Amino acid sequence: MNDGTPTPWHLTPPTFQEIEEAARRIRGVLVETPLLESECLNARLGGRLLVKAEGLQRTGSFKARGAWNRLSLLSSEERSHGVVAFSSGNHAQAVAWAGQRLGIGTVVIAMPSDAPAAKIERTRGWGAEVVLYDRATEDREALGRRLAAERGLILVPPYDDRRVIAGAATLGLEVTQQAKAMGAVPDALVVCCAGGGLTAGCALALETLTPTTRVFAAEPEGFDDTARSLAAGMRLGNAPGATSICDAVQAPMPGILTFSINAPRLGGGLVVSDTEALQAMRVAFEEFRLVVEPGAAVAFAAALCGRLPVANRIVAVVLTGANVDPGMYQRALSTIT
Amino acid sequence: MNDGTPTPWHLTPPTFQEIEEAARRIRGVLVETPLLESECLNARLGGRLLVKAEGLQRTGSFKARGAWNRLSLLSSEERSHGVVAFSSGNHAQAVAWAGQRLGIGTVVIAMPSDAPAAKIERTRGWGAEVVLYDRATEDREALGRRLAAERGLILVPPYDDRRVIAGAATLGLEVTQQAKAMGAVPDALVVCCAGGGLTAGCALALETLTPTTRVFAAEPEGFDDTARSLAAGMRLGNAPGATSICDAVQAPMPGILTFSINAPRLGGGLVVSDTEALQAMRVAFEEFRLVVEPGAAVAFAAALCGRLPVANRIVAVVLTGANVDPGMYQRALSTIT
Repeated sequence: MNDGTPTPWHLTPPTFQEIEEAARRIRGVLVETPLLESECLNARLGGRLLVKAEGLQRTGSFKARGAWNRLSLLSSEERSHGVVAFSSGNHAQAVAWAGQRLGIGTVVIAMPSDAPAAKIERTRGWGAEVVLYDRATEDREALGRRLAAERGLILVPPYDDRRVIAGAATLGLEVTQQAKAMGAVPDALVVCCAGGGLTAGCALALETLTPTTRVFAAEPEGFDDTARSLAAGMRLGNAPGATSICDAVQAPMPGILTFSINAPRLGGGLVVSDTEALQAMRVAFEEFRLVVEPGAAVAFAAALCGRLPVANRIVAVVLTGANVDPGMYQRALSTIT
Repeated sequence: MNDGTPTPWHLTPPTFQEIEEAARRIRGVLVETPLLESECLNARLGGRLLVKAEGLQRTGSFKARGAWNRLSLLSSEERSHGVVAFSSGNHAQAVAWAGQRLGIGTVVIAMPSDAPAAKIERTRGWGAEVVLYDRATEDREALGRRLAAERGLILVPPYDDRRVIAGAATLGLEVTQQAKAMGAVPDALVVCCAGGGLTAGCALALETLTPTTRVFAAEPEGFDDTARSLAAGMRLGNAPGATSICDAVQAPMPGILTFSINAPRLGGGLVVSDTEALQAMRVAFEEFRLVVEPGAAVAFAAALCGRLPVANRIVAVVLTGANVDPGMYQRALSTIT
């Protein structure tokens, strides 16, 4: 970005108007997921905790927002060419679903060969062509670009795209409106963060709507690249070899566009352990009767564990997705809290 | 009713206007729970299945609607006296919660001594005084009336009250509006049925809003009193000694008011087994990532098992609650579908 060449348009932040347009675009197609609170939990925390139940979204995660907005904006000629995306999980399903709903004939998704069989099956179920690659030896971004070039497909990035971010930002818009209807202006919003697209979208939406709300990124231990990058003021990657059950929030490093949005706007990064994520999944079941996947529980966990104080404040957290297999979910329900 | 004495006002059906007033009363306090659908499931069933995720309601069930509406309608003098209700589960929690939210000083709930500890604890957590009784030797209705008389409390019945039914009916209002926003007018609505209050409320609401929608009651085997009563044209009780894991839908027989509303309006009763309810809980997890309790899964189960055909039609089902303990939920997730 600093070599004198202009930043490509898609790598510049969306305007607030684009976010509002995205909100109109998703209406009636996507779910306005509820914003919930529990008096019992509020009493325990000494404040108000609002949770956005985004696991109830189409395809089970917030990714449907960005995918729908991006694919809706394709011209009819682009639609006739088709799209390609790479993802091991939630973005894959979202793009496949949106492609089918919009009648896009060719949707190609590059998925690692060791992705859960159910996720591959579900992506195929939405009519997508799944190209499997070896996670150990192949670069998924390069593969995505190659498929796009060879077959004339439009590449749909998981986060570094202003239209994808504008779609994700509609979640921030909804949280603000729903909180207002509950008589609340959050002091803080905590978002589960991988590449940073949802976090960036929310930061942009709230900057206009409720500038007093501080936005925080939550990550699992070992994949706290955004927390460290925010502290350092530059994009840092994760050390190789880390593992976590939080599969949905494991990006190699913050995105280019997302970090440029997040760096000057976020209140910081919050980091939780896998055990804390599992405990948060159990509390979500007990207090809200909500299914949450491990990676989507890290923002809630950060609030429960006091990484971000709730006492005497209003804190909103996003439960970003719910694509968890029964075995892992049973493990969470057996966790002692 | 046929002995010449006039029917008490509270045992006559609410008007549509009262249902609309109840809807205004709950706004901003209760959750507008989402109406969801799954393309995968629709493809499998060959039609459109819309599910109302009412387990996300305050206190985890639709009972919060009736409790809130009834308690909101108390005069300030009545509020100063306090209220009493009897229930082993969802109605207990709903009345305790609504009483606390409305600042009603005395809320007494008669609960069986063998009710789940967590439900008793939660009811107490909302500030209610819990009076335990022996399910084997005491009559809960008589106990409720006695507590009301002795302590000057207002009795809040679980279903046979026009204000409770008007509150429950707001769910029917919401389903209709949400379906319309999704471009759908349901051919049928299936409601989990115990005393019949929610079923009656929905039947009244839909009669005005979408008279082409047929309403059905779903029940578990052994507690199919409404199905048999509808077929016989008179209120029939369940045979003693039946057991079911569907604890939330076990009324001894249809209510007086609810049956008078349901008998001329319903399309019939649908009956499912405990195993079918468990399978439906697992499908709700897989397709919608929703927690459902066994008794709240019977309407969904009826549609999944073909008790009510979905092919080439639009069928809406209500998942009425989600107050299930982790052990039972893990059992459902281990069920083969």
